[in-house]
Amino acid sequence: MCRFLVYKGRNPILLSDLILNPTHSILTQSYDCRLRLDVRRPHNGDGFGIGYYTSPLLSPEPCIFTSTTPAWNCVNLARLAKKTTSSLVFAHVRATTTGALSESNCHPFSYHSLMFMHNGHIASFQTIKRRLVSALRDEYFLMVEGSTDSEWGFALFLDTLHSLGVDPKSAPPEGFGHQKLREAMLGTIRRLNEFFSEAGVTEPSLLNFAATDGHSVVCTRYVSSRDDEAASLYFSSGTRFHEYKEGGFYRMERHDRGQDLVMVASEPLTFERGDWVTVPTNSVLTINKQTVLIHPIKDQYYQSDPSYRRSMKFAEEKGMVGRGPGDELPATEADGQLKSQLENSASQKLQALVSAA
Amino acid sequence: MCRFLVYKGRNPILLSDLILNPTHSILTQSYDCRLRLDVRRPHNGDGFGIGYYTSPLLSPEPCIFTSTTPAWNCVNLARLAKKTTSSLVFAHVRATTTGALSESNCHPFSYHSLMFMHNGHIASFQTIKRRLVSALRDEYFLMVEGSTDSEWGFALFLDTLHSLGVDPKSAPPEGFGHQKLREAMLGTIRRLNEFFSEAGVTEPSLLNFAATDGHSVVCTRYVSSRDDEAASLYFSSGTRFHEYKEGGFYRMERHDRGQDLVMVASEPLTFERGDWVTVPTNSVLTINKQTVLIHPIKDQYYQSDPSYRRSMKFAEEKGMVGRGPGDELPATEADGQLKSQLENSASQKLQALVSAA
Amino acid sequence: MCRFLVYKGRNPILLSDLILNPTHSILTQSYDCRLRLDVRRPHNGDGFGIGYYTSPLLSPEPCIFTSTTPAWNCVNLARLAKKTTSSLVFAHVRATTTGALSESNCHPFSYHSLMFMHNGHIASFQTIKRRLVSALRDEYFLMVEGSTDSEWGFALFLDTLHSLGVDPKSAPPEGFGHQKLREAMLGTIRRLNEFFSEAGVTEPSLLNFAATDGHSVVCTRYVSSRDDEAASLYFSSGTRFHEYKEGGFYRMERHDRGQDLVMVASEPLTFERGDWVTVPTNSVLTINKQTVLIHPIKDQYYQSDPSYRRSMKFAEEKGMVGRGPGDELPATEADGQLKSQLENSASQKLQALVSAA
Amino acid sequence: MCRFLVYKGRNPILLSDLILNPTHSILTQSYDCRLRLDVRRPHNGDGFGIGYYTSPLLSPEPCIFTSTTPAWNCVNLARLAKKTTSSLVFAHVRATTTGALSESNCHPFSYHSLMFMHNGHIASFQTIKRRLVSALRDEYFLMVEGSTDSEWGFALFLDTLHSLGVDPKSAPPEGFGHQKLREAMLGTIRRLNEFFSEAGVTEPSLLNFAATDGHSVVCTRYVSSRDDEAASLYFSSGTRFHEYKEGGFYRMERHDRGQDLVMVASEPLTFERGDWVTVPTNSVLTINKQTVLIHPIKDQYYQSDPSYRRSMKFAEEKGMVGRGPGDELPATEADGQLKSQLENSASQKLQALVSAA
Repeated sequence: MCRFLVYKGRNPILLSDLILNPTHSILTQSYDCRLRLDVRRPHNGDGFGIGYYTSPLLSPEPCIFTSTTPAWNCVNLARLAKKTTSSLVFAHVRATTTGALSESNCHPFSYHSLMFMHNGHIASFQTIKRRLVSALRDEYFLMVEGSTDSEWGFALFLDTLHSLGVDPKSAPPEGFGHQKLREAMLGTIRRLNEFFSEAGVTEPSLLNFAATDGHSVVCTRYVSSRDDEAASLYFSSGTRFHEYKEGGFYRMERHDRGQDLVMVASEPLTFERGDWVTVPTNSVLTINKQTVLIHPIKDQYYQSDPSYRRSMKFAEEKGMVGRGPGDELPATEADGQLKSQLENSASQKLQALVSAA
Repeated sequence: MCRFLVYKGRNPILLSDLILNPTHSILTQSYDCRLRLDVRRPHNGDGFGIGYYTSPLLSPEPCIFTSTTPAWNCVNLARLAKKTTSSLVFAHVRATTTGALSESNCHPFSYHSLMFMHNGHIASFQTIKRRLVSALRDEYFLMVEGSTDSEWGFALFLDTLHSLGVDPKSAPPEGFGHQKLREAMLGTIRRLNEFFSEAGVTEPSLLNFAATDGHSVVCTRYVSSRDDEAASLYFSSGTRFHEYKEGGFYRMERHDRGQDLVMVASEPLTFERGDWVTVPTNSVLTINKQTVLIHPIKDQYYQSDPSYRRSMKFAEEKGMVGRGPGDELPATEADGQLKSQLENSASQKLQALVSAA
Repeated sequence: MCRFLVYKGRNPILLSDLILNPTHSILTQSYDCRLRLDVRRPHNGDGFGIGYYTSPLLSPEPCIFTSTTPAWNCVNLARLAKKTTSSLVFAHVRATTTGALSESNCHPFSYHSLMFMHNGHIASFQTIKRRLVSALRDEYFLMVEGSTDSEWGFALFLDTLHSLGVDPKSAPPEGFGHQKLREAMLGTIRRLNEFFSEAGVTEPSLLNFAATDGHSVVCTRYVSSRDDEAASLYFSSGTRFHEYKEGGFYRMERHDRGQDLVMVASEPLTFERGDWVTVPTNSVLTINKQTVLIHPIKDQYYQSDPSYRRSMKFAEEKGMVGRGPGDELPATEADGQLKSQLENSASQKLQALVSAA
Repeated sequence: MCRFLVYKGRNPILLSDLILNPTHSILTQSYDCRLRLDVRRPHNGDGFGIGYYTSPLLSPEPCIFTSTTPAWNCVNLARLAKKTTSSLVFAHVRATTTGALSESNCHPFSYHSLMFMHNGHIASFQTIKRRLVSALRDEYFLMVEGSTDSEWGFALFLDTLHSLGVDPKSAPPEGFGHQKLREAMLGTIRRLNEFFSEAGVTEPSLLNFAATDGHSVVCTRYVSSRDDEAASLYFSSGTRFHEYKEGGFYRMERHDRGQDLVMVASEPLTFERGDWVTVPTNSVLTINKQTVLIHPIKDQYYQSDPSYRRSMKFAEEKGMVGRGPGDELPATEADGQLKSQLENSASQKLQALVSAA
């Protein structure tokens, strides 16, 4: 029952406008998820992390700040957020599923200029762990510091990227390119599915991943099942994200000249329902500059019929369904309504991108 | 929206049978309060503490273990609870109202052989703080380490006890006696009311306190208002508190030979409704050996009519109403039903004690 | 046995060039003070803090980052320092003298745009505490969150500044002015001396304070004694502070056009002895833009004879003497050599300033 | 540069008499190692842990308390130590060599009734890690939570014990027996040496391990080198360990009826030089009830000539040489003097045991 958030903008945003102030910010989500269906553990109080890129003059690595203090209690987070701006931010609140409470287990993880986070869980991880570990090149095997399935997932992502002929340690000045990152992400999921298959794991895995090299961002909404719904994922894009009314009431403004910023989030940050578009299940979302591209992931778990209703039960039991404060519809319905939502509330351009994918 | 728990028994209890295992243990309460009415802060994740007395051979002071890690994440707490037994235990989970997240702000507080905790809040504490500080003898003024209203309340309790002619630093071998402790507790509340009155504070204070010297225990359920309900408080007594069914299903057993153990708690620990008796509002409960005495606190906020219904609104807004898992009645009704509950479910002896008070 | 460091520059510095990388950085000082004479507690492992001002567009308050994790273990500190630049920085490592280990007890303290830290200790603080507390206006009395003598010293500083006719809450755009800050600092010391005198405290206090409003900085090197030496304090100024040789070898460069940056520190950060000038005992150092002014504090503890040798014993016992890595001379000698050092290594301008004071 | 301590007694000891009060207790060692030769990291402030067995009525597992707060700052440790007694205690203070600061990385590690700790380091661990990981049965591969070489060493120990035909999860009522534990320990070292050999690692490893099942204890003093000295290790045994003079002056009392307690420690806890016997390099010490047995480890790194002087350089550089406060001799000399020490200060019985080994 984690939650994550990605911000990518032409201009930097003050972190507090992103993670502290909005009525349903990720900080609020850390203790007030709207649908606390995961009765085993009703909040995200097991640590958090933010990662952001600074001026390229200060080196291409992101700055990572993690803590095992619950996000709502971390005075340092509140202070830093009010004083830090960035145009590419990852944020994550964590509820322990595997891995002890430890800073080493907090997302986002980073490796040189790359950053990675995960919302979900790798099913029967103990059963496939040895396969995964054995499949890695030494440098990624030795990189893992903590004990989460997600960090091993990152190691696998790096190893897969490496296999594509690039060196994850040394990105070109403009990054690896969004195609390369997307390819590595899809390869990561493919390899995980191979491990599941070899090990006879049939429980679905919830694999909402996000990765970036500081230039492009790639996010998945994915479940290794034909019939179950994935963990929730939304995006919003526009010209300006700003507080239109005091008290944390933020809205996305849109002008016709295209997007200046994109946010991707497990749960919408605001009550403005029209601002948030559901990412279709089993698809990969890419942000190239501020342009959003969505591609379906067409593997054995793909449903070509867009009206097929996946079951919410599994994702809800895992606490992985978040909705916007104004959104009372089940996510599957929301999915079904994607097309009309796009027509009504998001830009025509976005729709075009989705259709093209 | 804190919660507290007191255990006093003829025999020691394994701490995990008290604070970890019961279905609705104080640990569970730390993240799953049944009625999350305090929307500002829906859990008790701001630290916790336990205090317990050990063999008198090891000195009369209690052992205190506190942490700012949420109780549900503290592996040390879980490990210690499985390996520690005591016949007099205080436990507390905290939600910040005043005072930063800091071990110095975790209850229970201790001073030599005395231990103290608070569930509630002192109204407009900033307004009366200087009066309270000025009223204290130097040793209690200088004793305060943290920044909570509750610790200053403890300092006032010690100062009041001191005024009764005893030295809080050096208890007699059998303690100060339950009358002395009760007198000090009532004096503490009286002095707080005087500060409120002098400073013109009219907002009610929720003053559920618990204090012990390692021998007797005194607890209050009190609100400085004629019309509002106090924070919830329950007690249970019997011969044995044990797990009758695997999975945390605990029950209080009772045999005719009187009580062997008493528990007092902000919220019942079990689904066994008949095991828990509501402590009447504005009364003081004393445990002398394993005998429970309840006295009304007859001051300006006393309601002599037992059928008077105080308003739940204030206490609920403060997140101070906890109920048993099987108990859907508002606390005021529960109060109204005290007599019949006693007749039905608790021992006749208890009823006698309450009537006598 | 704390240590502190002030940086003020025309241009921002990368925090890691200040607090992480130099051979004898404050981080290194946190576990490797050259003269571990305080045998009771041989390091500064009780928390740390940094405070820095950001772009004025982001509000005039400083950003404060504190932690109870020893500085050398705080991965967040290391990560942030590599990604944060500022032209006015305070840094502090702490060894507990009074006050529990708690983030509330970490320096620097802040109040709106003001920041404050202390290296030393207020003698017999328990004896004067009530006097100090009673002397404060309510807003500063109520501001204190922790339990250190130093934070109460800050409250007294604010109260003294308030008495000078300004509102500490709302600084003018260019700050309160260096005269005002200096006057408030001197008033703070005067009032402390009055409390000592009234309470009959004769043990010397070590009062190295630093305060800033984001524009000017004022630091004291002070001891309330005629015969004992104060805690050590040094400064360095020049055109550029840079790593001239890999491995943390930093040096202050100077060109004839005056200073571009000033650092004040309990211990020199580098082996470059000529770069560091000892601040004379019982004087106040002011940084106005990048210009350093030093004034003697002429009260009952002043020694007008510049050749008078104060005893190092007291300050050394308190662990308050830090020296540069290349400096084996006792601090009193170093003091005696101030004039020649100035002639040899620091700019003529600095000497003029000191003489004028 | 860690330190560890083992206590095994016929009677329980109050933990504070072991880890807090002695002049040179492990708590003091955490910040005041006498010979701070490891200039890279001059203290043991990276967390600590204690493990102790309680009444067998409370289950055979040890109680583990670990913290990343430096031992000297952990108020919980001080409070618990004053209130906890045990007749079999492990204590460890840690200086990071590999593995982040995290509770998962604190020793002692435990697995059901078994407990394990390590003082030293496994050389080139990254180089042999994959071999070690691949050699483990799944249950021990999956057990590892942290990122230290030491925890993987424990996993290897469990796997080796398993290979001896016992199930580490379920010890017989009287434990596995000291022979079995010793055999597993020697097997662990042998397998590590095989990994080094296969991987071409020639840097010596410092392998002072301690393991127990709650009944017997086995400790090694070992280095994988013919010419270098191992990390220091001492033991003391007698009838009573008590404070003969206020201020932490403890002494081991001996009466002719044999030992009632044994302590094994990286550094002597007291100034009483005659109380501490150096464990010979490359030997294994077993405590069966309160009887000490010492066997040489006769492998490729064994020196049969007892007068051979190993070089202290390597162990000192690693910060692994601790001596008694009254002991200014290099450890090798102390080793050479083992025989005479035994004749003078330790019981004849002990000498006999060593000779027999």
